[in-house]
Amino acid sequence: MAGSTFGKIFKIATWGESHGAGVGVVVDGCPAGLPLKEADIQKELDRRKTGQSKVTTTRKEADKVRILSGVFQGKTMGTPIALWIENHDADSSKYELIKDLYRPGHADYTYQMKYGMRDYRGGGRSSARETAGRVAAGAIAKKLLAHYKIKVIGYTRKIGPFSAKKIDFNEIERNIIRCPDKAVTDKMIDHIMKIRKKGDSVGGVVEVIAKNVPAGIGEPVFDRLDADLAKAVMSIPAVKGVEIGVGFEAAEMLGSECNDAFVLKGKKISTKTNHAGGILGGISNGENIVLRLVVKPTSSINKTQNTVTQKGKKATINVEGRHDPCICPRAVPIAEAMVALTLIDHVMRQKLSRL
Amino acid sequence: MAGSTFGKIFKIATWGESHGAGVGVVVDGCPAGLPLKEADIQKELDRRKTGQSKVTTTRKEADKVRILSGVFQGKTMGTPIALWIENHDADSSKYELIKDLYRPGHADYTYQMKYGMRDYRGGGRSSARETAGRVAAGAIAKKLLAHYKIKVIGYTRKIGPFSAKKIDFNEIERNIIRCPDKAVTDKMIDHIMKIRKKGDSVGGVVEVIAKNVPAGIGEPVFDRLDADLAKAVMSIPAVKGVEIGVGFEAAEMLGSECNDAFVLKGKKISTKTNHAGGILGGISNGENIVLRLVVKPTSSINKTQNTVTQKGKKATINVEGRHDPCICPRAVPIAEAMVALTLIDHVMRQKLSRL
Amino acid sequence: MAGSTFGKIFKIATWGESHGAGVGVVVDGCPAGLPLKEADIQKELDRRKTGQSKVTTTRKEADKVRILSGVFQGKTMGTPIALWIENHDADSSKYELIKDLYRPGHADYTYQMKYGMRDYRGGGRSSARETAGRVAAGAIAKKLLAHYKIKVIGYTRKIGPFSAKKIDFNEIERNIIRCPDKAVTDKMIDHIMKIRKKGDSVGGVVEVIAKNVPAGIGEPVFDRLDADLAKAVMSIPAVKGVEIGVGFEAAEMLGSECNDAFVLKGKKISTKTNHAGGILGGISNGENIVLRLVVKPTSSINKTQNTVTQKGKKATINVEGRHDPCICPRAVPIAEAMVALTLIDHVMRQKLSRL
Amino acid sequence: MAGSTFGKIFKIATWGESHGAGVGVVVDGCPAGLPLKEADIQKELDRRKTGQSKVTTTRKEADKVRILSGVFQGKTMGTPIALWIENHDADSSKYELIKDLYRPGHADYTYQMKYGMRDYRGGGRSSARETAGRVAAGAIAKKLLAHYKIKVIGYTRKIGPFSAKKIDFNEIERNIIRCPDKAVTDKMIDHIMKIRKKGDSVGGVVEVIAKNVPAGIGEPVFDRLDADLAKAVMSIPAVKGVEIGVGFEAAEMLGSECNDAFVLKGKKISTKTNHAGGILGGISNGENIVLRLVVKPTSSINKTQNTVTQKGKKATINVEGRHDPCICPRAVPIAEAMVALTLIDHVMRQKLSRL
Repeated sequence: MAGSTFGKIFKIATWGESHGAGVGVVVDGCPAGLPLKEADIQKELDRRKTGQSKVTTTRKEADKVRILSGVFQGKTMGTPIALWIENHDADSSKYELIKDLYRPGHADYTYQMKYGMRDYRGGGRSSARETAGRVAAGAIAKKLLAHYKIKVIGYTRKIGPFSAKKIDFNEIERNIIRCPDKAVTDKMIDHIMKIRKKGDSVGGVVEVIAKNVPAGIGEPVFDRLDADLAKAVMSIPAVKGVEIGVGFEAAEMLGSECNDAFVLKGKKISTKTNHAGGILGGISNGENIVLRLVVKPTSSINKTQNTVTQKGKKATINVEGRHDPCICPRAVPIAEAMVALTLIDHVMRQKLSRL
Repeated sequence: MAGSTFGKIFKIATWGESHGAGVGVVVDGCPAGLPLKEADIQKELDRRKTGQSKVTTTRKEADKVRILSGVFQGKTMGTPIALWIENHDADSSKYELIKDLYRPGHADYTYQMKYGMRDYRGGGRSSARETAGRVAAGAIAKKLLAHYKIKVIGYTRKIGPFSAKKIDFNEIERNIIRCPDKAVTDKMIDHIMKIRKKGDSVGGVVEVIAKNVPAGIGEPVFDRLDADLAKAVMSIPAVKGVEIGVGFEAAEMLGSECNDAFVLKGKKISTKTNHAGGILGGISNGENIVLRLVVKPTSSINKTQNTVTQKGKKATINVEGRHDPCICPRAVPIAEAMVALTLIDHVMRQKLSRL
Repeated sequence: MAGSTFGKIFKIATWGESHGAGVGVVVDGCPAGLPLKEADIQKELDRRKTGQSKVTTTRKEADKVRILSGVFQGKTMGTPIALWIENHDADSSKYELIKDLYRPGHADYTYQMKYGMRDYRGGGRSSARETAGRVAAGAIAKKLLAHYKIKVIGYTRKIGPFSAKKIDFNEIERNIIRCPDKAVTDKMIDHIMKIRKKGDSVGGVVEVIAKNVPAGIGEPVFDRLDADLAKAVMSIPAVKGVEIGVGFEAAEMLGSECNDAFVLKGKKISTKTNHAGGILGGISNGENIVLRLVVKPTSSINKTQNTVTQKGKKATINVEGRHDPCICPRAVPIAEAMVALTLIDHVMRQKLSRL
Repeated sequence: MAGSTFGKIFKIATWGESHGAGVGVVVDGCPAGLPLKEADIQKELDRRKTGQSKVTTTRKEADKVRILSGVFQGKTMGTPIALWIENHDADSSKYELIKDLYRPGHADYTYQMKYGMRDYRGGGRSSARETAGRVAAGAIAKKLLAHYKIKVIGYTRKIGPFSAKKIDFNEIERNIIRCPDKAVTDKMIDHIMKIRKKGDSVGGVVEVIAKNVPAGIGEPVFDRLDADLAKAVMSIPAVKGVEIGVGFEAAEMLGSECNDAFVLKGKKISTKTNHAGGILGGISNGENIVLRLVVKPTSSINKTQNTVTQKGKKATINVEGRHDPCICPRAVPIAEAMVALTLIDHVMRQKLSRL
């Protein structure tokens, strides 16, 4: 039931499958007056698209976006903005061979059990291709956030055993893995390439930071900013966990270590540390929002795996093809999009909190 | 804006502050015909209430629930069920002393920035007292899930450095920390008691398992079961992270390790391992749902901390009082409630997925 | 499924039955900082309550409201406001006699068919008693509208064949029928009293005007102001129709008659006539909002009627008791409440329409 | 804010303007397994399209629909269904002349006041062209209703002074005015043609009947079936009123006349009359749902009207062009669509009402 709609104020409805006419999104709730052109959106889609480097899938999709409504004379009108990204790589013949097999780690089995049918071509709706619609909508969210001086920045924090220790924002888009620490970038890339050669895949951690979020954003007790961010990024395919600030480290901390002391920075109330990741009681406190999400290794691997057929027979499968050996580099713009969509919804909701 | 409403089908609206007339909840969307009495709800509230053991706060609140509507002749009628838990411990004098100070780790500052005012008595709406409403509604969700044979079980997985290695469901409610592994229970309790003596607090990890969830539950692409569970538990005060299945371990895994092979158990399609935590592509696969959440150490500590006043002056604060030294034991029923509320919403949504 | 929740921004959830512990409402989404006391709400409830005059039911219910949450130091806090109106007239013995009979015009049969059960005491949830929760929430909406200078005024426009020709706002609360035209007030009252004596009831038309609604309120294409107002008043028990501006007269009008010419009143753009009832394209145009709703004659009459039993046998019924002979006088504050709730939701939504 | 989304279960989001790339809709929440092809939708669009007869506008738009997603192998998949109807009649030059003038009866002024800007070409989003998206989504709703044996039938009940006295369903689609009474069809058409010649327009009443709706559909107390139907049809451009069953006639009726006696038809509980229009207490009672809506005369007329410019100067305007002299014939399929969308939402919600 209606699970492809996201947001309460800046509301989006995405649609589309891997091998249909395309993927798209309707943004219902963008305020009037925002300058918007296709290039604003294309820029973000290009960061998500396939074939952008040797650490991504080598499939090539143009991912050209078209604005179908909602913009007039270069500005949003306050009416729904429909975006369409046409599909071109429509060769679904290879999927005919595995249409009766459930690919391990994929949603073939669960879609079949949910709907009693499924589009087996490229995963259908469960394909990561669907996220193009999110990135497109997220691009508008980012533009709107920029109006409020808010900036959302994502990067690869960890690949296998290699973690970025340093966060240099300038470094991120300079390397194909979107790593902010020059010192580990090559190690990460080598690690991926080695695993790819074996037909295998590897997981990683993406971190997203939101800067200049004013204090006061978030709607307790359920629509807390952290809760809505958690939902947003957990809804990205392959994400298996999310944490804010110190996250899971909090389990071993004492209150006296974990609490962020309030201090004055000039006249501004701030905190000495940011263990909270910018959120207290579900509401932003004016510090950077910091969250991390873990992505599992790509489920499609060029290795023989045990599975069963749709009719319930034992079988083996080898998901040949051009898969991402690691999802992180392309997950970065998707995670940014989901964070941006969540933030703009909450920034707008805050306009309603006080008389 | 309207952040105290949760769920799309089994919808709840909670209300209440720490020092007002009480806390409560309206459940709008419970189907007609479910046997329900106050004792069903009281049982769960008693697991959450204060003063239940030496590892919880020593404050005593009766937390007696009253059903005000929606039940007739022992059954739900399909109409809204209003529940009220009256407040009794209404001594707010001690809060007068700190009403101009922002307590570190608490939501005093962020509520002030959001609403331009706040109820400083016991944290007002940001008090964990609010969760009584969730537990009460969750008790109804649990009863309804039981109708579908689904069971939700939570327990303390980790306190500071001590982790349960074994999960014995029978053990959980036999000890005050709700630990499922007899071997570490005493260590956990000792650890908490030592920290309490120092006026400090400690964090931990709670794990929740849902059994007998049929395959097919969850609504991609945004209202995935994992995404909605993540939101649900992240909305609990003090939770800083959530993970499903292998969670953050996935970052270091290979696809060939992480993928759960499909196997036949008799005629039932199942998976050999459960790294996915029972969810693939945002939809349950019939295995146990397994999720973990990390709770930070209680923010209220009997130690002097640096802070600022509401007027922006440097100050120190010592949050004296009877605080929980560790939130885990009482967080268990709250986490179960949020998982149950999410599951029942999705179980009902699944009725709408196929013709 | 969850039909007792209303509004998107200023969201209310009502609860309660005729013979339970009471009726109430949770208002989730009222901004912080609004001065609010129980008397503000009581004032409106007193206009709705039973036994207020000879043209209403002679049952007496105190309808005392209690604010359970959301208000601190005389102001709303931005957190949910829970209101409770306790039931006192709990004598349900007379309903035992008719518990197997479906009362014509009432919802006994439809509730039974919907839920497979029903609370037969006083109509249960289908009782007009439920509207006390609406009026209580509406009182808060009215206070909030007053902050924006918007005023909502309702009155009885027609009873049987007698219509008010003149609208004198000062007259409305001076007479027991809430008629704005002194010349027909007595005729209306006499008409009702005559019908009451025969054990019968009569219908009527209520008109509601909203003044000072600025141009620009309403959210096409579905959440138009007129559409949401129509839903709001049609959700009141016994309402069978709603019209805006010229309403059903438009069927016989020409475009050249019906169009309201734009004119300048000083520097303000206005319209020469107000056939549109203040709404163009679903958005307010700055003129008075004018809507009318028709209420059917009270279904409970002291006359023998044909019906069937729950088991499907022919029967007759006479719904003895103290019924309103005409719903209009008490429907006026209910209609005002529903209009106010709709308007405040839209006034707040408008804050989100432009950059 | 997000006003172009409709429905809770079978949720639609429409988009598009009169002179953009087209209009469309995303249906999020259609269950899997419904046979669906473009022809099913085209059939309904053809009933709405321009240029279909001498009583409609002579503009010609092909209104060809394309299914972009959600259907595989001829069946819905449970995933979002995106529909696109491309615009072709894109000549907007004539609108340049009146872009600074507010057309009386139109939404030019109110859109400008709401959004601070507007697309003046053909009314932009406020154009009735937008309703093509509704009709397209409604066609799917109708197919789904047919699965439950429910049929929605609309027709022109009244044009100016001429009313259909007899309802012959077979007659409706045989005449260009969609009138069910052969005896008045020609009078209605003549009336329209005479008014058209004068450059003027005329209003009318459309009636919609839903057959075979089982008892028990509707969600009190706010999402009553009548309330949601009222919103649905009132959201159609030019509609100024809606009534159910006896509607506004109820004002002059007595309870003893208005109440529908329950009777047995065989073993089925039914009512002797259907003054209620099939709805009691907001829930269907198993009789035909009967509702009427009034449409105002088309606002665009070839006559000189007084107005003001955007800058606030007095002016006159003559909205030349090819306008519908009467909206009724083309409003019939739109009204049916809105009723169908409301009904399917409620039919599906009913699956959740009982254990």
